Amino acid sequence: MTIQASGSVEKWGVFELPLRGPSTGNPFRDHSVQAVFRFGGREVKVNGFYDGEGKYLVRFLPDREGEWSYETISATAELNGVSGRFECVPPSAGNRGPVRVRDAYHFAYEDGTVYHPFGTTCYAWIHFGEEMQEQTLQSLSGARFNKLRMCVFPKHYAFNTIDPDIYPFEQKPEGGFDLTRFNPLFFAKLERRILDLQKLGIETDLILFHPYDEGHWGFDRMDAAVDDFYLRYAIARLASIRSVWWSLANEYDFMKEKTLTDWDRLFRIVQEEDPYSHLRSIHNGTRMYDHGSIRFYDHAKPWVTHLSVQHWDVTLPPIWHRQYAKPMVIDECCYEGNLPQRWGNITAEEMTRRFWDSVARGAYCAHGETYADPENDIWWAKGGKLHGSSPERIAFLREILEEAPDNCSPIPQIYDVPTIGVEGEYYLQYFGLHRPCYRDIPLPEEAEFAVDIIDTWAMTVTKVEGTFSGLSRVELPDKVYQAVRIRRIK
Amino acid sequence: MTIQASGSVEKWGVFELPLRGPSTGNPFRDHSVQAVFRFGGREVKVNGFYDGEGKYLVRFLPDREGEWSYETISATAELNGVSGRFECVPPSAGNRGPVRVRDAYHFAYEDGTVYHPFGTTCYAWIHFGEEMQEQTLQSLSGARFNKLRMCVFPKHYAFNTIDPDIYPFEQKPEGGFDLTRFNPLFFAKLERRILDLQKLGIETDLILFHPYDEGHWGFDRMDAAVDDFYLRYAIARLASIRSVWWSLANEYDFMKEKTLTDWDRLFRIVQEEDPYSHLRSIHNGTRMYDHGSIRFYDHAKPWVTHLSVQHWDVTLPPIWHRQYAKPMVIDECCYEGNLPQRWGNITAEEMTRRFWDSVARGAYCAHGETYADPENDIWWAKGGKLHGSSPERIAFLREILEEAPDNCSPIPQIYDVPTIGVEGEYYLQYFGLHRPCYRDIPLPEEAEFAVDIIDTWAMTVTKVEGTFSGLSRVELPDKVYQAVRIRRIK
Repeated sequence: MTIQASGSVEKWGVFELPLRGPSTGNPFRDHSVQAVFRFGGREVKVNGFYDGEGKYLVRFLPDREGEWSYETISATAELNGVSGRFECVPPSAGNRGPVRVRDAYHFAYEDGTVYHPFGTTCYAWIHFGEEMQEQTLQSLSGARFNKLRMCVFPKHYAFNTIDPDIYPFEQKPEGGFDLTRFNPLFFAKLERRILDLQKLGIETDLILFHPYDEGHWGFDRMDAAVDDFYLRYAIARLASIRSVWWSLANEYDFMKEKTLTDWDRLFRIVQEEDPYSHLRSIHNGTRMYDHGSIRFYDHAKPWVTHLSVQHWDVTLPPIWHRQYAKPMVIDECCYEGNLPQRWGNITAEEMTRRFWDSVARGAYCAHGETYADPENDIWWAKGGKLHGSSPERIAFLREILEEAPDNCSPIPQIYDVPTIGVEGEYYLQYFGLHRPCYRDIPLPEEAEFAVDIIDTWAMTVTKVEGTFSGLSRVELPDKVYQAVRIRRIK
Repeated sequence: MTIQASGSVEKWGVFELPLRGPSTGNPFRDHSVQAVFRFGGREVKVNGFYDGEGKYLVRFLPDREGEWSYETISATAELNGVSGRFECVPPSAGNRGPVRVRDAYHFAYEDGTVYHPFGTTCYAWIHFGEEMQEQTLQSLSGARFNKLRMCVFPKHYAFNTIDPDIYPFEQKPEGGFDLTRFNPLFFAKLERRILDLQKLGIETDLILFHPYDEGHWGFDRMDAAVDDFYLRYAIARLASIRSVWWSLANEYDFMKEKTLTDWDRLFRIVQEEDPYSHLRSIHNGTRMYDHGSIRFYDHAKPWVTHLSVQHWDVTLPPIWHRQYAKPMVIDECCYEGNLPQRWGNITAEEMTRRFWDSVARGAYCAHGETYADPENDIWWAKGGKLHGSSPERIAFLREILEEAPDNCSPIPQIYDVPTIGVEGEYYLQYFGLHRPCYRDIPLPEEAEFAVDIIDTWAMTVTKVEGTFSGLSRVELPDKVYQAVRIRRIK
C-alpha cells in the first residue's frame, strides 16, 4: 500500500492514518475504530481496520481540495480521540477519480471525463507466483484494457487447481482456516496489485464471492456472519482506492449455498459500509445451451449501479436497457480460445464482433482469453501472456469510441442496423456478420457529413470520397465486420 | 394440369372428373358442385370448381389402392348425379404421398419415408416470364432442395415491382379486378408449376396471403367474404396435389388489415375444406432490431401442424419446442446475399452455419438468395439463377441427415453443444462458431463407436483413427464450422 504522508494527499488519493492499539486476543473481532473526516460542514464517517502486529489503520479517499480534519472514535481507549488535519491537493496526472454512472448508458470518472470500459479477465492472477504476476502486468501495459475482473478468493476449477501460498484468512497450523482472523499480508498484496493496475489506468472489478471453490477451501460456503465480517473488513481496507469496483459475485446463481436474500443483504452491506459509493454489480452464470435458465439478479434494485452480464447473445442489450435503464457491461460473452468448454473457444473474429455488436447497441463487452496450454497457463485464470488476436482490435474500437462524442447512445429509429450516435451529428453503425454492398442513408438536408468505412477486423478507416447531405448512397465493401462512421462537418 | 384418365389413377395422384355446366351469369358464384368418393365403407366429400367456358372440374386425391366410386351433388341439374368408378393403382416411382407430421420433431411422407425439409424461397417466380420460370426449374433441378416457398399472389416490393401478365382474379377492362371471378388460366399455370416442382421432388409451401402489395393491387386488403371465396376456390383446385402445403401467410403480422380472428377463421376454412389435411402453417414477420416485438401466431392452436418461423437466432428451437412440441422450420433466417437490407445480406458461411445450428437443435432451416443484380433478377423473388455457395453445403447437410437414423432428436443432456441423435446409437453434434481443440466424450462402456469429424464448410468427412468406448478424447481441428458424428458399430 502506498501510504500518503499525513501532511498532504492528492484528491482521490488515499489518506492513511496509522494507529497503535492492542494486539492481544483477536483484535480483528474485539476492537474497532472509526474516524470522522470533515470538510467545511460535511462529515464522512469511515471504518478503520486491524492490520496485524498492533497496527490499526484508517484510510480515507478525499474528494475535495483544501483542508480536511479528522477525529477517531473507538471503545478502545488507545484508538479513540486521535485527531488531526491534512491538506488535499490537486490530483496528479491520470487521476480522474472513481468511475461513476453518468447516465443510463455511460460511465464517467468523477472529474467528468467519460469512461468507456474495455475490460479483460484474470480471475485468480494474484494467487500465482510473483513472476507470473509481473508478466501479467507487463502484458497489460502492452494492451489497452482499462478494467480487469479479478477475484479476492483463489479459484479451484478446471485448468486451475494449484493452491496459493497465502489466503484472505489466517491458516490454522492443523489445516483449514481461522475464519475469525484475516491475513493482513494477503490484503496488502491485493492492495498492491490493485494499485499496480491503477498505475496502468486499469480499474479493478473486484469479485467478492465466487463459486469456483466447491468446498475445496470452503470460501463459497462460509456462514452469513463470516461473509459479513469478511465483507466489512474488505471494504474498510479497499474502499479508499479510487479504482475499485465491487462485483458481489461471479456466477452468483451457481453458488448454491446462497439465496437471493443473502445477496440482497450483502449488497446492502456494501452500500452502507462504502462511504464513497464505488460501482456495485453482480454477475450471472448460466447454462449456455438452455436460454430459459438464465437468471439475472434483479438489476433494478437500487443498490445495483450497472449490469455485469454473462450472455453470448450480444444483441440483447436493448431489451435489458428497457428493463433496467442502467449502463451494461457484458463481462462474459465467451472467451477467445480453443478450450473444449463452450465458453472458452470462440475465435478472435467472433470476440471482436461481440465487442462491436455490444457497443453498437449501447452496451460494453469484456475480453478473456482461454487458449489451451501445456502448463495450463491460461490468461483468463492466471494472467501471464496474451496470445490472441482480439486485444488489438478491441483497442482499435476503444480508440474509435474515445474519438466519438461522449453522449453517443443507441438510435433505435435506425432499426435495421445497430447504431449509436448523436442525431444529426454523429453515427457509428456496425454491420457485423451482415455485408450489404451499399446503404442508402437518410441524412439531414441542411448539414454536410463525412463518411468513413471502418474495417473492424483489418483495423482500417477509409474515408469515402466527397461529403454527404440528404439521402446518400454509400457503396460498401462486400465483406463482414464493417462499420460506417458518419460525422457532421458543416 | 396433368389430367388422369378416369379409368385408373395412381395412389396419391390426381383423379379429375370434368363436367359441363352453365357458363352464363357468374358460374364461380352461382353454381357449385361436390362429389362423394367412396372406398369400402369410407366416404370423402370434395368440392369441385368452375374452370371457365362452361367447364366444371372435381379433383380427388385417392390414398388407397383399389376401386373407388363417386357421385356428384349439385343444385345445378347438369352437374348433379354424375357417377362412376375408377381404379387406384400403385404409386409410380418417387410418389410417396403427401408429407405429414410424424412426431414432435419430424415429418414423413404418407408412405412412412422420413422427409427432412431443405427448402428454398422464390416468392413470386411464377409471376415472371416463361423463360425465367424454366431457368428457375433448371436451377432447382441442379440443386438439392426439396421444398419451395412461393406465393399465389404477385409481389410488389423492393427489387420487384413489375406487374405480372395474369392474376388470380379476372381483370376488369377499365382496370382493377373483378373479385367475384377467378382467372382459371392463372390457376392452371400455378398448378402446372406446382407439378413441375413435384417432378423435381420439391414440395410446394404455398403462401396464400402476403403483405407485399400494400394496396398496389389490393390483394392484401380484400374483405373477409372475398378472402374466404378465394381460399375455397384455391383449395378446391389445389388440394388434390399431394405436394401442396398451406402457408396461410408470409409475415402475417405485417398485414395490418387482418386481425388474429381473421387468421383463425382462415385457418379453420383450410382445415375444413381440405379433405386431405395437407400441412398448415403461418409465417411471422419481425422488426429485426427489436427482439421484443416478435409476435408468433399461437402455434399451439390445433390447426397449426408445424412452425414456419422467421428468426435470425437459430439457437431458439429448444424453447419453441417446449412451448409447441411440433416440427419447426425456420423458413427465414436471413438470406445469402449482399443487399442493403439486413434480412438479405448474410454470407454463405453464415447461412450454412444457421442450417447446421438449426438441425443440431431439432429444427429445420430454409434457404433464400439475395445477391444484388443489375436487372434485379434476385432468386428470392424471381427465381432464375443461383449464385451463392450455400446450396451445395445445404445439400451436403441433407445427405448427412438422410444417412442418420430417422428418429434423431435433440439430446438435451449434452447441454454444452447442440446434439441430435439416438442415445447409445448415434450422435451428430455441431460446434459452429466454437472451435474446441479437443472434446472428452462420455460414451457407453459396453459398445464400440466410430467417430467422424465433419468439416461442414469444406464438406469433408474424416474418420478418426480407431474405435471408441467409455470416456473418449477426440482431437478436433482448431477451426470453426466443425461437426462430430458418432456411430455405434458394435
